[in-house]
Amino acid sequence: MQVHPMWDSYPELREDLSNVLELINKHIRVRDKNVNAIIKDRIFGGGKLLRPIYSILCSNIGPDKDKDRAIAVAAALETLHMATLIHDDVIDGASTRHGKQTLHTSEGSKFAIYAGDYLFSVCFTILSRHATSLAHLEFNSRSMEKVLSGELDQLNARFQPPTSVKGYLSRISGKTAQLFAVSCYSGAIESKATKKQARNAWNMGHYIGMAFQIMDDILDYQGQEQTVGKPIMADVKQGIYTLPLIYAMQSNPKQLQTLLQKNEDLSSNDMEMILATIKQEKGLEKSRKLAERYTNKALKEMKKLPEGTYKDYLYTITMKLLTRLF
Amino acid sequence: MQVHPMWDSYPELREDLSNVLELINKHIRVRDKNVNAIIKDRIFGGGKLLRPIYSILCSNIGPDKDKDRAIAVAAALETLHMATLIHDDVIDGASTRHGKQTLHTSEGSKFAIYAGDYLFSVCFTILSRHATSLAHLEFNSRSMEKVLSGELDQLNARFQPPTSVKGYLSRISGKTAQLFAVSCYSGAIESKATKKQARNAWNMGHYIGMAFQIMDDILDYQGQEQTVGKPIMADVKQGIYTLPLIYAMQSNPKQLQTLLQKNEDLSSNDMEMILATIKQEKGLEKSRKLAERYTNKALKEMKKLPEGTYKDYLYTITMKLLTRLF
Repeated sequence: MQVHPMWDSYPELREDLSNVLELINKHIRVRDKNVNAIIKDRIFGGGKLLRPIYSILCSNIGPDKDKDRAIAVAAALETLHMATLIHDDVIDGASTRHGKQTLHTSEGSKFAIYAGDYLFSVCFTILSRHATSLAHLEFNSRSMEKVLSGELDQLNARFQPPTSVKGYLSRISGKTAQLFAVSCYSGAIESKATKKQARNAWNMGHYIGMAFQIMDDILDYQGQEQTVGKPIMADVKQGIYTLPLIYAMQSNPKQLQTLLQKNEDLSSNDMEMILATIKQEKGLEKSRKLAERYTNKALKEMKKLPEGTYKDYLYTITMKLLTRLF
Repeated sequence: MQVHPMWDSYPELREDLSNVLELINKHIRVRDKNVNAIIKDRIFGGGKLLRPIYSILCSNIGPDKDKDRAIAVAAALETLHMATLIHDDVIDGASTRHGKQTLHTSEGSKFAIYAGDYLFSVCFTILSRHATSLAHLEFNSRSMEKVLSGELDQLNARFQPPTSVKGYLSRISGKTAQLFAVSCYSGAIESKATKKQARNAWNMGHYIGMAFQIMDDILDYQGQEQTVGKPIMADVKQGIYTLPLIYAMQSNPKQLQTLLQKNEDLSSNDMEMILATIKQEKGLEKSRKLAERYTNKALKEMKKLPEGTYKDYLYTITMKLLTRLF
């Protein structure tokens, strides 16, 4: 199956990821052929497949290297990610994702809600078929719980003044970093890595997720719609206050508060003002610095892992990802 | 915990069900206390707990009677049911459920979507912690898949002319009967029932589910809002054509088609006309007859199960339920 072009320079990884998509594809089997086709068209729409690749790479940490199982676990994680994205898009009212119309835009939010639910169940079918133990499965569903209660928290925090950097970090920790951590940990644990190695993998994934989300939130302010794959400053319009804005609020609260009170009525002029203030208060710069700190923490954890080709891949991909060369 | 008053005459079952709710309650632990309280308030809002009681009763079929495990499986099934109800209410725009405001009405549909997702993951956490094998778990998630692809099918069928009784039956088979069948089967299989017994339990659950859904659809036309717990003729307004209407369409298509073309613009006068036509064409009577046939099939399967007190309960509850004495 077609994999994101960013993997073209890594044929080995590209093949693994193609197998991940193939396995997911095999598990999507809604009775109605039309519905089936729509779901497939939308979920195989060009995601970067970061969670599965981290999981697969980390399945080289332990001695029990079973590629089929590694691919199954990666497929379950990606399916879970797809399910949450579909529901996120309904909730955020996002009209495009990876440059394509979102499922709820083309098929309606009702369809998108059930399609997401369906993918949740597919995720568990894949896991229960391929995981090695019930304990591992329980771990996975608990992690999923945490991801989702993170979403509920984020929702609850909307349109309330961005409290603090700490509040932001706790939010992205539950929302993004959790799934990166689970991905690395699951790969490691399935390969029978030691507890210590699995913990290193978890920490590495957590830090990568933190850095990744901060970079993503920076891009929301400065990227081009085409490369980012979604409209610019979508977060502010949604009432989601991310790190660059929070930093700027800390040094210049008055001006921003007046603007932000308009919530969904923000004009494009207001948006430009917000962006200018953020730049002036070095909100982007400070955010980039924090992302760098998390990247360094991730690399430190990575260093502790056993040597092997997989580690070179881990390093290269993480560096490319977190400096956003792709 | 408070259990629906219909169980007051069965103290033993009421205690089991109270334990089911207690277990679910223990597993709901969203970080934000406020969010946690809202979810709990809404999901412990007076459901009849039919799926868990069938599962628990069927856990007496085999020789391995472990009450704690039976309660856990029942709790997982009820949590799954709750999750689908919350999403159903968002999708149907239902404003009340069991006489209480629905979650999406009071908290917004965004909240309700994530809360449903959260409950899906709780369902799997409970299952993976208490189920006896991965194979059983795979069976459960596959069943869940079928329930959800049933929902997708139903959605797809909306506002299209009700095709046939066959189409209706296939729809409710995926939507309601599936979960009743899974409930009975899961109880049986966890108690190490024979394959044949488990199949009987599955069939019994399936037939009960079919009869139950038909009765529910009849009540949508003739019940009182207070007893049914939701507005009357909500289905037609939603463009969902159920059995009484389909029967009436078959004998008097013209008059009904003209009315139904109005879709969401149906006036209360139109609704009265529809109801009168259904009654005149014996749509309710014919539906009741079909429900009776499924009830009899269920009783026939029930008869094949090993004797025991649980069987008396099964019989009494099924009869009460399917004649809608409660």
